[in-house]
Amino acid sequence: MNHYRSLRIALLGAGSVGSQVARLLIEQQHELAARVGAPLELVGIGVRDVDAKRDVELPRELLTDDLETLVAGADIVVELLGGIEPARTLLLEALAAGADVVTANKALVAAHGPELFEAAAVVGAHVAYEAAVGGAIPIIRPLEQSLAGDRVTRVMGIVNGTTNFILDRMHTEGSSLEDALATATALGYAEADPTADIEGFDAASKATILASLAFHTEVPADQVHREGITGVTDAMVQQAERGGRVLKLVAICERVAGEDGADRVSARVHPVSLPGTHPLAAVHEAMNAIFVTAESAGDLMFYGAGAGGPETASAVLGDLVSMARRHVAGGPGMPVSTHANLGLAPFADVLARHELALTVADRPGVLARIAGLLSEHGVSVESVRQDPSDGSASLVLGTHTASEGRIASVLEALEQQDDVERIDSVIRLID
Amino acid sequence: MNHYRSLRIALLGAGSVGSQVARLLIEQQHELAARVGAPLELVGIGVRDVDAKRDVELPRELLTDDLETLVAGADIVVELLGGIEPARTLLLEALAAGADVVTANKALVAAHGPELFEAAAVVGAHVAYEAAVGGAIPIIRPLEQSLAGDRVTRVMGIVNGTTNFILDRMHTEGSSLEDALATATALGYAEADPTADIEGFDAASKATILASLAFHTEVPADQVHREGITGVTDAMVQQAERGGRVLKLVAICERVAGEDGADRVSARVHPVSLPGTHPLAAVHEAMNAIFVTAESAGDLMFYGAGAGGPETASAVLGDLVSMARRHVAGGPGMPVSTHANLGLAPFADVLARHELALTVADRPGVLARIAGLLSEHGVSVESVRQDPSDGSASLVLGTHTASEGRIASVLEALEQQDDVERIDSVIRLID
Repeated sequence: MNHYRSLRIALLGAGSVGSQVARLLIEQQHELAARVGAPLELVGIGVRDVDAKRDVELPRELLTDDLETLVAGADIVVELLGGIEPARTLLLEALAAGADVVTANKALVAAHGPELFEAAAVVGAHVAYEAAVGGAIPIIRPLEQSLAGDRVTRVMGIVNGTTNFILDRMHTEGSSLEDALATATALGYAEADPTADIEGFDAASKATILASLAFHTEVPADQVHREGITGVTDAMVQQAERGGRVLKLVAICERVAGEDGADRVSARVHPVSLPGTHPLAAVHEAMNAIFVTAESAGDLMFYGAGAGGPETASAVLGDLVSMARRHVAGGPGMPVSTHANLGLAPFADVLARHELALTVADRPGVLARIAGLLSEHGVSVESVRQDPSDGSASLVLGTHTASEGRIASVLEALEQQDDVERIDSVIRLID
Repeated sequence: MNHYRSLRIALLGAGSVGSQVARLLIEQQHELAARVGAPLELVGIGVRDVDAKRDVELPRELLTDDLETLVAGADIVVELLGGIEPARTLLLEALAAGADVVTANKALVAAHGPELFEAAAVVGAHVAYEAAVGGAIPIIRPLEQSLAGDRVTRVMGIVNGTTNFILDRMHTEGSSLEDALATATALGYAEADPTADIEGFDAASKATILASLAFHTEVPADQVHREGITGVTDAMVQQAERGGRVLKLVAICERVAGEDGADRVSARVHPVSLPGTHPLAAVHEAMNAIFVTAESAGDLMFYGAGAGGPETASAVLGDLVSMARRHVAGGPGMPVSTHANLGLAPFADVLARHELALTVADRPGVLARIAGLLSEHGVSVESVRQDPSDGSASLVLGTHTASEGRIASVLEALEQQDDVERIDSVIRLID
């Protein structure tokens, strides 16, 4: 096995992750060869502009802008270009030629995962994408392999570092959302245009991937209910803290029992209020963590850096070494299992406890009328907190578990109600 | 692939984990067959006494006390007997016959792992042991595969639920060690004879396994420095809390730079004092967690139930499904990599900050003499806290980073010192 031929590695992309992968492949070539049982030969680095300035100095002779030719001769293609095209076409070509693929491209896997997995299955190749969710955190492999004999019931993850940083600062330093976002931008945690992060698009891509894996079911990205953090106010943060809780933006993928008894899958992204003692509550700054509940295993959590060049490169290299070992040992890739293909649960069927914060007229009978309105819609009240506030009153109603559909009709009815001046916020509680 | 023949599974042991594995194999046979691509046929359950009473009712016709015959006809042997013999001999026979092996037996893997891995490599079979460390927590596969392209620098784990439960109760409820142990026994977290847990033997077996994996180096169990929790006092708990810290029993496996510049491996088990903000500090009750630091990935943590029948069965089934998929797909097992074979660092070379709590005579010049003594041994003092106490004084000295060897000679010298009435405790700090 020590005399196995070199494995030809084609690297696509030399950004913050790609340049670290190239550096490690070159610096640690002896160590990696010993671990794999064969040398890993970096045959080229495909970039748009070979003369662009880069963080890490890369050997000039490896850079090429002819990505198609580079891919054609490779045993393993590592795709770190990001975006859909040309990544998708290049990887389909690579797979058709029998190469294995490693990618960190969450948008591509979320949108075109099934197409790539099918192309791989045809030739017995493999697509690995550990780095696409949770950066350095091993989560794909545990879901795919370690929990392969268990039934996952829920995956709940802090999978976006930017929004976790912002919410964490709002709690720990009392910052406003705007100030915390400005700090995140200054520290390089947020992009110049933070929309993909703060509106939850990034987390929604990851929810798609996690839901597909955990429930052996394809979940299209446009079926993920998505709310970002732009609606989170100081008042909501304080309200959570009064209850010993913290607000976190999470991606939730859950097995939901439908009314017909058949299991469905719900995938959604929105802020939740967690008890301060929940393991996810201790995830600070821009760190990520994924909390998994399975029938036999119980609760598991996977914690680490969700982004960053070297951190993400670690996950890419882990995939690369596993795949290279398989080349040396022989044997085809493992097909991805979507055999369950559960239906998707509409967001309206999802259950949660809610806290509705309202500004109401300060007059007799208001509470009774509002409680009656909730009851008419089948939502029962668990707790009430009322504070006077300048002629009006601020009212926080905690509900028992209710479906999102019922809560939506309650909110609609509250908006028509004369007593209600304003609906200040709706927070979902998770225990 | 749907017409692949059944895979013959032999189960050894029908205790709390084994009976759950049997139940899941029977109850979820259709789901598992779909995931694997072939039926998993439980051909027999090897037990000492087929008539013994069990937690889960198992089909009488599957039980046998002829373990050798059972093993001989299996594709995959699942060993949940515990202890060294007859487990070791049966698994060597199974491997020699080409069967794959799944085991949760930490004592066996710690003591005879290399022998089993070699026997597997000879025939291209595989030994999987995810359940041997951290129960339900996926930690073996992440270390073996996800971090395969990175350099692990430290693994620090709460890998024993009993001792974590006891220390947690001492902190959260102010219990004494004796009371907390009694509660642990009453709740079924501690065995009638708790020695293996509270003296750190169980954690030391796991340290051996983790160190071997993380550093590609065989670490014999008798090379693991081991201290349990029996020396932990209420005063030590309070001292930690005054500094915003908590005491945890951890297994630490670390890459240590030797004086010759070559890396060595240190594996040890002892209580440490962690900052309250450390992710491991939030691991309560009998939960386990393993905190891994790697050069590129940074800090990762894996959290979950470290014991329990169904929880451990989840990890066993994960291994079993992975192995069965490999049978269906074809291709040999991956040999275990011990190619680095680093030397072992003596405990005396390990570095840490320490807190030395002393009861000293309350007379002039004591502090200066004691500080001078530390300095003579090359240990420098970072913080001092002195409280009078009935004619004597209680003195807590925080040191800068110093080797265990230097601290040991300081302690020896302090014992000879007239000013020192008693050495109350030595606590190692980790940040």
